Amino acid sequence: MIGIQKYAVIVAGGKGTRMGAIVPKQFLPLHGKPLLCHPIQAFADALPGIHIVLVLPPDQLGSARTVLRSYIGNINVTIVAGGETRYHSVQNGLKEVNDDGIVFVHDGARPLISTELIRRCYVRATENGSAIPAVPVTESVRMDENGISTPVNREQLRIIQTPQTFRTEIILPAFEQEYDPSFTDEATVVEAFGTKVYLVEGMRDNIKVTNPIDMIIAEALMKDRS
Amino acid sequence: MIGIQKYAVIVAGGKGTRMGAIVPKQFLPLHGKPLLCHPIQAFADALPGIHIVLVLPPDQLGSARTVLRSYIGNINVTIVAGGETRYHSVQNGLKEVNDDGIVFVHDGARPLISTELIRRCYVRATENGSAIPAVPVTESVRMDENGISTPVNREQLRIIQTPQTFRTEIILPAFEQEYDPSFTDEATVVEAFGTKVYLVEGMRDNIKVTNPIDMIIAEALMKDRS
Repeated sequence: MIGIQKYAVIVAGGKGTRMGAIVPKQFLPLHGKPLLCHPIQAFADALPGIHIVLVLPPDQLGSARTVLRSYIGNINVTIVAGGETRYHSVQNGLKEVNDDGIVFVHDGARPLISTELIRRCYVRATENGSAIPAVPVTESVRMDENGISTPVNREQLRIIQTPQTFRTEIILPAFEQEYDPSFTDEATVVEAFGTKVYLVEGMRDNIKVTNPIDMIIAEALMKDRS
Repeated sequence: MIGIQKYAVIVAGGKGTRMGAIVPKQFLPLHGKPLLCHPIQAFADALPGIHIVLVLPPDQLGSARTVLRSYIGNINVTIVAGGETRYHSVQNGLKEVNDDGIVFVHDGARPLISTELIRRCYVRATENGSAIPAVPVTESVRMDENGISTPVNREQLRIIQTPQTFRTEIILPAFEQEYDPSFTDEATVVEAFGTKVYLVEGMRDNIKVTNPIDMIIAEALMKDRS
């Protein structure tokens, strides 16, 4: 693996409105440190030497520097301003990728990402070109179209997580495309460029913090893990 | 609302295998009492006088009686043996419904059901004939067909919860149909009988306990609530 460069683009776009807090969710305290510190630590632990690029709304760059100085001593993190959409934010982060290798794109709001899942994605993306973590759906699912609902077969349905992981020769040209509203995650961007993506088994506890109850859940899962 | 009978058919089919425990999940301790006691208490609190029918695998009826005697003093619960599938279990529970009114069918593995959601379903099912609680999907979703995955528009996708709630004249005849493997929940049974179902806003914390980490999450949410 020597010579292969590794990059983690961690995207945190939260403005705090959905959480009902003034502090954006990526700065909320979780298990003793701001939420965004957890994924940074996980990538640094999983793959020493990885380049970490943290993408944040432009008005949060100063806060991020302060937080990293206090909580993340010896990990080298490049802080970059995000753009209008997730696509533009990831595009900005990818400008820091200067060598061939593997790129992880991770939601900053998934603090429970484990070193195990990071390594699994790394191995599979090296083999296949991409690795998109996914978990089965355990509940019934329906489509709701203007109040008319129809059942969906959940057997083939997968909830998609991050880190969405790619070889650089796959993700970099895909992010030179013109933006399209169908680009909801990195897998859709790569597919729109004509490249098949590969799913890999995700982890149920790799939750995305969206609502206040997710913070309670994340805290409980962190406590259980430690 | 006087004169309208109310029935809660609570179905708990867990055999404990997926939880990695010998004790079936409905008997695992949660916030000071066995898991299945929580939904029973919630229905009794939300709608005093409701008839509660608890459906369990045949070999768990004795344990259930012991548990109810110890933890559920003054609530009258009818215990019924389940069948081969969820459809057959609900069918057995519905044999205890002897009057016109409203029937809730609830997963025994959803201990966090709130009196608020029960009352919302009651009101809406009274008006519309049915009320199926549903929540939006906050994550990306894909279909995975033999390793080929395609994105799904999540805007119209809903995760379905329970209690699935119906007027008796809608649910009772629907459960006289011959069993079909497409009957994954009560809404699909009612639809197969030719009746449209109505969605109602569910609650994000009304989770289904499926895996061991769900017990940790449920415990944390219970603590936060109390």
